[in-house]
Amino acid sequence: MSPGEVVAVSLNTALDITYTVPHLMPDTSHRVTDVVTRAGGKGVNVARVLGRLGSDAVVLGLIGDDATGSDITAELAQAGVPARFVRVGGRTRRTVSVVAGPQATVLNEPGPHVTAAEWTAFQELFAGVVREARVVVLTGSRPPGVPVSAYADLAGIATAAGAEVLVDTEGPALRRALDTAPAVAKPNAAEAAELIERPVRGHDDAVAAAQRLVDLGARAGVVSCGADGFVAVTAGASYRVRVPHPVTGNPTGAGDALAAVLAHGLARRVPLPDVLARAAAVSAAAVACPWAGGFDPDVASRLLPEVIVRTTERKQDTCTSPPR
Amino acid sequence: MSPGEVVAVSLNTALDITYTVPHLMPDTSHRVTDVVTRAGGKGVNVARVLGRLGSDAVVLGLIGDDATGSDITAELAQAGVPARFVRVGGRTRRTVSVVAGPQATVLNEPGPHVTAAEWTAFQELFAGVVREARVVVLTGSRPPGVPVSAYADLAGIATAAGAEVLVDTEGPALRRALDTAPAVAKPNAAEAAELIERPVRGHDDAVAAAQRLVDLGARAGVVSCGADGFVAVTAGASYRVRVPHPVTGNPTGAGDALAAVLAHGLARRVPLPDVLARAAAVSAAAVACPWAGGFDPDVASRLLPEVIVRTTERKQDTCTSPPR
Repeated sequence: MSPGEVVAVSLNTALDITYTVPHLMPDTSHRVTDVVTRAGGKGVNVARVLGRLGSDAVVLGLIGDDATGSDITAELAQAGVPARFVRVGGRTRRTVSVVAGPQATVLNEPGPHVTAAEWTAFQELFAGVVREARVVVLTGSRPPGVPVSAYADLAGIATAAGAEVLVDTEGPALRRALDTAPAVAKPNAAEAAELIERPVRGHDDAVAAAQRLVDLGARAGVVSCGADGFVAVTAGASYRVRVPHPVTGNPTGAGDALAAVLAHGLARRVPLPDVLARAAAVSAAAVACPWAGGFDPDVASRLLPEVIVRTTERKQDTCTSPPR
Repeated sequence: MSPGEVVAVSLNTALDITYTVPHLMPDTSHRVTDVVTRAGGKGVNVARVLGRLGSDAVVLGLIGDDATGSDITAELAQAGVPARFVRVGGRTRRTVSVVAGPQATVLNEPGPHVTAAEWTAFQELFAGVVREARVVVLTGSRPPGVPVSAYADLAGIATAAGAEVLVDTEGPALRRALDTAPAVAKPNAAEAAELIERPVRGHDDAVAAAQRLVDLGARAGVVSCGADGFVAVTAGASYRVRVPHPVTGNPTGAGDALAAVLAHGLARRVPLPDVLARAAAVSAAAVACPWAGGFDPDVASRLLPEVIVRTTERKQDTCTSPPR
């Protein structure tokens, strides 16, 4: 298998199960009217979007050595998503989303316990594959047993091999990864709150949090703000990016779509300002798609000319029109 | 594999997933703190209890030809529960129980669609195995595609082969099965309500419903009433059976334990009155067990002498002391 220009790491790969019920009544029994099952986890979602963007992306992950794990590998193979997994002894994680009306009740299993030997085996696989990659995306939860330094360790291996790193995580794992000077750090607004020690409310707070990401080591800090779009900060400028009319749908996976476009831009050596509008359009188009990891290219194309990018150059501190 | 003295039919075999969460808050995300996965469905539960009773029981069922189905067959093999399945093209059913405190929120998948050819294949397997069985237990839901006449059809095959039939179902499927004159029909109180066209509240209503089962064709009608025990009606007598002190725990599977003891008695040619006290004790002991299909034999032994059986002979219409 070709190693891929982008490696999307998926340490806690999941089988995502979505149930539709007319109503959810706690403490009662429900007949599920519709069942949809898909391979998931943020790394898998990112790789799916990258594939649709035309990128040669591969999922590199951990997965349980059980039937659920085999289901996932079979599905990814059928969907044409290249993936290589270290199989671990525990059970593959499931997530259950119960959809009753516009919102969902989600149950996330913790994932299998990963032994030190299994984690070492993954790092060795990663070190081999990353030598031929241009970009590594580090995103999603860690299963029990994988150390908090995992993303920092992988970022260090990737950087030493000459690959760029995009990291999308939070808390101590994010702090440690920032020490490795990644190309992009992309938490969402809730995850970025601790960076500025207050909730992120609006683009001004998000710019402050993204600036903090740069101060802590990232070449670019990106903070996504749901339907309000996202902000990006580099050493030279800050960008406020949004789609004027919010898209309705399932916001799960919109952040992964954003990460995918940014990673694709890194891989193709496109300057960050030149991918911002597309990132916003694809991320919004992902909301219009009922499942995470998908987006409608036609919706993205329709939204692209509407995206508003407000650029503030650091030196001049002026607003410019959106780069196209 | 030995065909088994009791055949427990499991048309809609399930993977039962139990999640423990501190609280269930609709429309939010939850980290699951504990995950327990077991092969389930009422037929499987009955076979597990029969195994613990020392019976040579076999599960005969339908299961999806997928990884979940393989998980179930592997688990049953490891647990020493003999099972033979016709694999069908759809996905094996899962049930998800979310436990937060004393009650559970349950989500039941409908099960795979069974084709006419697959249903025929199951009937052929059944017809072969049932020739060497003494008792057949017909219980649990039917997956899409299996006709409402399924239990009547299987009961007819079993009866022609000389096996006794215990049927535990409801509605039109129960009505049709009663036409085949089964040895025992055993709905629960909620399922029996339609037989008397009113809710079953207390033992008098349950006796009326059980009598209706006999009038419609069953040799014995049994109606289970949860913590209030159960009633049984035959041509000659009626029995009100209960454990004086309710057992706390998980009532799921208590009805299956009752069916298992009744089936075991049928297989061993024990007169019905002589198994009633044990049926109540094992069923109550199943409540003390956290999972369906299990019971604590020590609890059952302790409860057995406490069980109260009130017998009403039809001719004399007098109360006698419990048979021991």
